[in-house]
Amino acid sequence: MNGELMIGDLLAALPEGRVVLDPVVVSGVSHDEAEWAPVGTAAAVVRPRSTEEVRRTVEVCLKHGAPVVPRGAGTGLSGGANAVDACVVLSLEKMASVLEINPLERLAVIQPGVINDVLRSAVAEHGLWYPPDPASSPWSTIGGNIATNAGGLCCVKYGVTRDYVLELEVVTGTAKVVRLGRRTAKGVAGYDLAGLIVGSEGTLGIVTEATVRLRPLPAPSITVVGYFSDVVSAGEAVRGAGAAGIIPAVFELVDWHCLRAVDEWKNMGLSVEAEVVLLARIDDPGATGEMAADQLVACFGAAGATWADRSTDPDEADALFAARRLAYPAVERLGPVLTEDVCVPRGQIPVMLARVEEIGRRHRVTIANIAHVGDGNLHPLLITEAGDSAARRRAQAAFEEILDAALELGGTITGEHGVGLLKAGGLERELSPEVLAMHRAVKAALDPAGLLNPGKVFARTTVSGGTQGLSG
Amino acid sequence: MNGELMIGDLLAALPEGRVVLDPVVVSGVSHDEAEWAPVGTAAAVVRPRSTEEVRRTVEVCLKHGAPVVPRGAGTGLSGGANAVDACVVLSLEKMASVLEINPLERLAVIQPGVINDVLRSAVAEHGLWYPPDPASSPWSTIGGNIATNAGGLCCVKYGVTRDYVLELEVVTGTAKVVRLGRRTAKGVAGYDLAGLIVGSEGTLGIVTEATVRLRPLPAPSITVVGYFSDVVSAGEAVRGAGAAGIIPAVFELVDWHCLRAVDEWKNMGLSVEAEVVLLARIDDPGATGEMAADQLVACFGAAGATWADRSTDPDEADALFAARRLAYPAVERLGPVLTEDVCVPRGQIPVMLARVEEIGRRHRVTIANIAHVGDGNLHPLLITEAGDSAARRRAQAAFEEILDAALELGGTITGEHGVGLLKAGGLERELSPEVLAMHRAVKAALDPAGLLNPGKVFARTTVSGGTQGLSG
Repeated sequence: MNGELMIGDLLAALPEGRVVLDPVVVSGVSHDEAEWAPVGTAAAVVRPRSTEEVRRTVEVCLKHGAPVVPRGAGTGLSGGANAVDACVVLSLEKMASVLEINPLERLAVIQPGVINDVLRSAVAEHGLWYPPDPASSPWSTIGGNIATNAGGLCCVKYGVTRDYVLELEVVTGTAKVVRLGRRTAKGVAGYDLAGLIVGSEGTLGIVTEATVRLRPLPAPSITVVGYFSDVVSAGEAVRGAGAAGIIPAVFELVDWHCLRAVDEWKNMGLSVEAEVVLLARIDDPGATGEMAADQLVACFGAAGATWADRSTDPDEADALFAARRLAYPAVERLGPVLTEDVCVPRGQIPVMLARVEEIGRRHRVTIANIAHVGDGNLHPLLITEAGDSAARRRAQAAFEEILDAALELGGTITGEHGVGLLKAGGLERELSPEVLAMHRAVKAALDPAGLLNPGKVFARTTVSGGTQGLSG
Repeated sequence: MNGELMIGDLLAALPEGRVVLDPVVVSGVSHDEAEWAPVGTAAAVVRPRSTEEVRRTVEVCLKHGAPVVPRGAGTGLSGGANAVDACVVLSLEKMASVLEINPLERLAVIQPGVINDVLRSAVAEHGLWYPPDPASSPWSTIGGNIATNAGGLCCVKYGVTRDYVLELEVVTGTAKVVRLGRRTAKGVAGYDLAGLIVGSEGTLGIVTEATVRLRPLPAPSITVVGYFSDVVSAGEAVRGAGAAGIIPAVFELVDWHCLRAVDEWKNMGLSVEAEVVLLARIDDPGATGEMAADQLVACFGAAGATWADRSTDPDEADALFAARRLAYPAVERLGPVLTEDVCVPRGQIPVMLARVEEIGRRHRVTIANIAHVGDGNLHPLLITEAGDSAARRRAQAAFEEILDAALELGGTITGEHGVGLLKAGGLERELSPEVLAMHRAVKAALDPAGLLNPGKVFARTTVSGGTQGLSG
């Protein structure tokens, strides 16, 4: 591959201003929020404004054997959007139009660079709701959400991104534009290739347009709050709620580390006297919701909550949810954070939370906890002091042990952040060699040149010379 | 391929009684309910009782290059389970155990031969619900439901089979046993290969175990019934309900042909004075449900219903739903039926119903209508007299025109029955050549020998000699 020739071809194929070569800008968009993941040196950044420009970019890269690393806002937490050497970073942020909102069909058609909250606000004007709500929703793009099959706070009742993707326009690794999926409520014409693209972290195709399913706006909800003196009893409360068949619309855990970090940053005046807080919202209408809220308060009490009740102060409830959403950036201010994203069966939540505590203690790593706990999706945040390389090594050991603990308990190494670079090792422990071989076969089938985001999800088996090909 | 050697190997590899060679039995399980689809001559039927027996069967077939056609109860309507020449029909009906019902995790683990209604009854004892409910639920197996991503009456609110599949154990075309997916509520470790298997009609792997998600049993529902003098005004009522944001738990259309056929068969005493009946169930609790039911009655009235109300007689409501479920077998008694399964956007339902009527009239084919109309999933039933080959040709022409009309209106050729053999031509009209090439590439990647259900979903590109290989 000759980088200069490729850049010349990109400049010739695309309108002015699309190709960015300034090393400072290139370096700035060469990584996501996974501070600990390795970052390569990109040859260029391309900022296309149409599907045809994406296609042309891939065509040029294909000709020169240059890897293409697609990205949205770069809020990922696994290194999935990190540049690899000599790649073209394809930033889809400028393709950010909401193309259609259709209340009758309850769907929206959007470009990949639309920010999650922008979509949510736009459809809310029509009384509609796009449920997947990662904590990054003010910044992350739908394209990025699709790449990782993003979850969020509402998943416990309303599902994840894949559940809302109807149709995708995709540029393939062979520089073809294809439409996958359908616009209708149901459809089984052929394989679910749209669903396969969702969560493939940019390794199987580049999404240039998405048709997403919408729901009516949910009913007003009741907030239930519980204070606990330790994570394990909070975990028991979640297990109890699951056993009682209660399905909150939101069911979150935030610990004292996170609340304090948010409070110190934002001066929210959170006066929470608890080690751990459980926050739930019940949105079943009428008496059904009232009953579920009462049951949930009882479950909290039975598990040993130091205090549990419906929130009668909407401002306080909103402040707690805001704190939950700000927990990650707040904790990041304390030092480099290694973010976990394991998911375990509901019944194993208390055991897993205890294991995380024990692992942190043993490795002398401060671990803050936030969790979409109703789903069993835990985000232990491993915090180290900047520049302390011994602490960093201890945190890395703890990180891998947490993955192993999740697997031992019948869980997965990633609930919603994706494998990216940080968890390629974990993936090889989660999937059998035969299943990994199936992954590589699918990758080779749909991206025969190995052009798209190579080295993400699963490690490259061979890298020969300057080419980034993946051997089937 | 030498059939006798292969049969010898099957007999040697499997316990006694698993391999069936009796031509009458073999022929009896060599087809599904798609009366018009071609049926090949199978070499043998195998009835395995364990995953290992399935694996061994595939291993023998792989050695001899014999196609494997997996099947459940054979209630399919597209020919997906039809034998191809010299194949082994792999009947999974004897693998019919419910292995686990877990109320805390809200999941069940089952073998593929478990009948849909058996699973539903078993989980109901724990206050749980498996929503996907094809009209064939008293007979069809979960394995078959997974193969076609079956829908049913509850899909309009609760989704289709794929929405409920968490994890699959699969025997691949290379005779490997793999586990795909996960047991946790969320998970993004690698590609969604479990979702890819769902709806792949046995062409990518043979499901030997499934872990399915469950929900709490739904609340009691309110039945709303509307009588209409024609299908188009009924379609307008559905469009109106969609525009009003009403989401019934069930929303069905049944026409007079079907009701009469059921009544003549079962003597149910259905005294419906209408050309078309809309049947809906609203299961939102409390005042929310009451309001939605009132709104729906108003939508029916606004679209010109001759009568519309909540059903105050539960027996009558149950009889109407029973009639809906029996419509297909009842109509089948009138002569060979060619079953459509198109799905169109909600807004196009009235137009599509009018097109179906017009096509039937022009080709002089009697068309009865049932529909999961809330999803836009229409099942025009094309009825001909047995032995009338001219009528049969006219029906086939009408069948293809209905597919084209659905595509023109932004719909799909199959909402829930699958492509099988009957719609391979339609699939080539729905998908672009590039997307078809992606399908073939995925098929070749996961089933390199082209062993699994060849010729289904998409036509074989080449058949050389006795082998059934699919050229990538």
